[in-house]
Amino acid sequence: MDKMNHSSADTEAETIEALRYLSKGEAAAIETELLRDYRFGQQQLIEIWGQACALAITKAYPLSSLPKKQPTVLVICGPDQNGSIGLVCARHLRIFALCASQEFTAAPVNGQDTYPITFSARALRHEMVVPRYYDVTTEVQLINDAYNLVIDAMLGAESDPTNVKEPYCGILCTLKQVKIPIASVDVPSGWDVEEPSQDGIHPEVLISLIAPKKCSMSFSGKHFLAGRFLPYDIQKKYELNLPDYPGTDCLIEL
Amino acid sequence: MDKMNHSSADTEAETIEALRYLSKGEAAAIETELLRDYRFGQQQLIEIWGQACALAITKAYPLSSLPKKQPTVLVICGPDQNGSIGLVCARHLRIFALCASQEFTAAPVNGQDTYPITFSARALRHEMVVPRYYDVTTEVQLINDAYNLVIDAMLGAESDPTNVKEPYCGILCTLKQVKIPIASVDVPSGWDVEEPSQDGIHPEVLISLIAPKKCSMSFSGKHFLAGRFLPYDIQKKYELNLPDYPGTDCLIEL
Repeated sequence: MDKMNHSSADTEAETIEALRYLSKGEAAAIETELLRDYRFGQQQLIEIWGQACALAITKAYPLSSLPKKQPTVLVICGPDQNGSIGLVCARHLRIFALCASQEFTAAPVNGQDTYPITFSARALRHEMVVPRYYDVTTEVQLINDAYNLVIDAMLGAESDPTNVKEPYCGILCTLKQVKIPIASVDVPSGWDVEEPSQDGIHPEVLISLIAPKKCSMSFSGKHFLAGRFLPYDIQKKYELNLPDYPGTDCLIEL
Repeated sequence: MDKMNHSSADTEAETIEALRYLSKGEAAAIETELLRDYRFGQQQLIEIWGQACALAITKAYPLSSLPKKQPTVLVICGPDQNGSIGLVCARHLRIFALCASQEFTAAPVNGQDTYPITFSARALRHEMVVPRYYDVTTEVQLINDAYNLVIDAMLGAESDPTNVKEPYCGILCTLKQVKIPIASVDVPSGWDVEEPSQDGIHPEVLISLIAPKKCSMSFSGKHFLAGRFLPYDIQKKYELNLPDYPGTDCLIEL
């Protein structure tokens, strides 16, 4: 869309009419409804989203386009739902012959399991399908040399960007400096759900889940949406104005 | 494959080398390993398989090919895992604009929940995404008139075809008489996992999950395989010799 021909106010109104960008509260409310009222299982959603992310990555970075000899991808998985999605994505990428060869799956920093996904996240962590490491290098040069791209599945919409604890804080510093492309899942790590980050990481690809969040309104990279499974009633209730997905595809480029 | 040029023994040896057809015990063992050792969740597997079934149906029966004005599909869902897969398939079909407009989701006949899937199957049953009926007509003519095809997700590999209870027995009688095409999930209802049925239903389409079962060795209809997610170690251990799936497709026609 050519935004140059519109005033800022025009553009905003048009964008809202065309496609809804969710606040943090709306994103959480929709997910709660999916789980509570529509009885989706958390594992179902994670599987749907993880697979869609893998498809988006293969579209954005076809095997033939990768600069390194080995099709290596660093998938950084956080402790919560985004991390579980990253693990599923890694499994599918491996099947698609992109080697998701290293992951970071930290235990919750406070040592407690407070987030309701923790059980299935833990189960996923033990999946023996993808090799993984429980610690990720923070050496920028090592990452630049070893991988074609980084998939950022570290901190999701539910995390507080003003209070990022170790080890995520250190990894975030590294991600701000890497030169290889970053593809973020749902909300780039360290960004506020509702505000684009000024000094955060700059992903080349963003894969929005359900509907895009407010922080992605001015995102200028390759932007995919994966949320096709969403019941019509929820789409209507939240006036999401989702685009028509082509054919039987489970994702669309915005 | 042209079987006419080979003796029966040759054909069998060739087929086994090319692709492994599973016994009931092997199919059960693989699923147990996926859940216990690889820590897949039952809901994950059901989501993966249900989505793949929906994609197979849209390939076998594109919207433009349906003879009825309305794109109606009768999805018959049994009480166990196959029924849950049918529900997920119906949800995806609905999104793909094929109206999966009626389903049968009976309570377990003995009134007890003995199968380990029951919890998540029950959760899925309450999904309010697809309209459903808790009783299916056994009027053959009504089904022939109202629907373009029947998806048979009633009795799966775990059921005993020599001891089919009501209401499934009555539905099976109906399915043997309907004139519209039947697409079966994994094992056609009423068939023995290891033997092709002589007097059972005759599906036009079969969607095998993980790997084809022995009963499908001489299946002459359109045969899809959906099992791409399978870890390599399991593929090797069971010598499945799965075909190469094209691109990022999650199913392949055998």
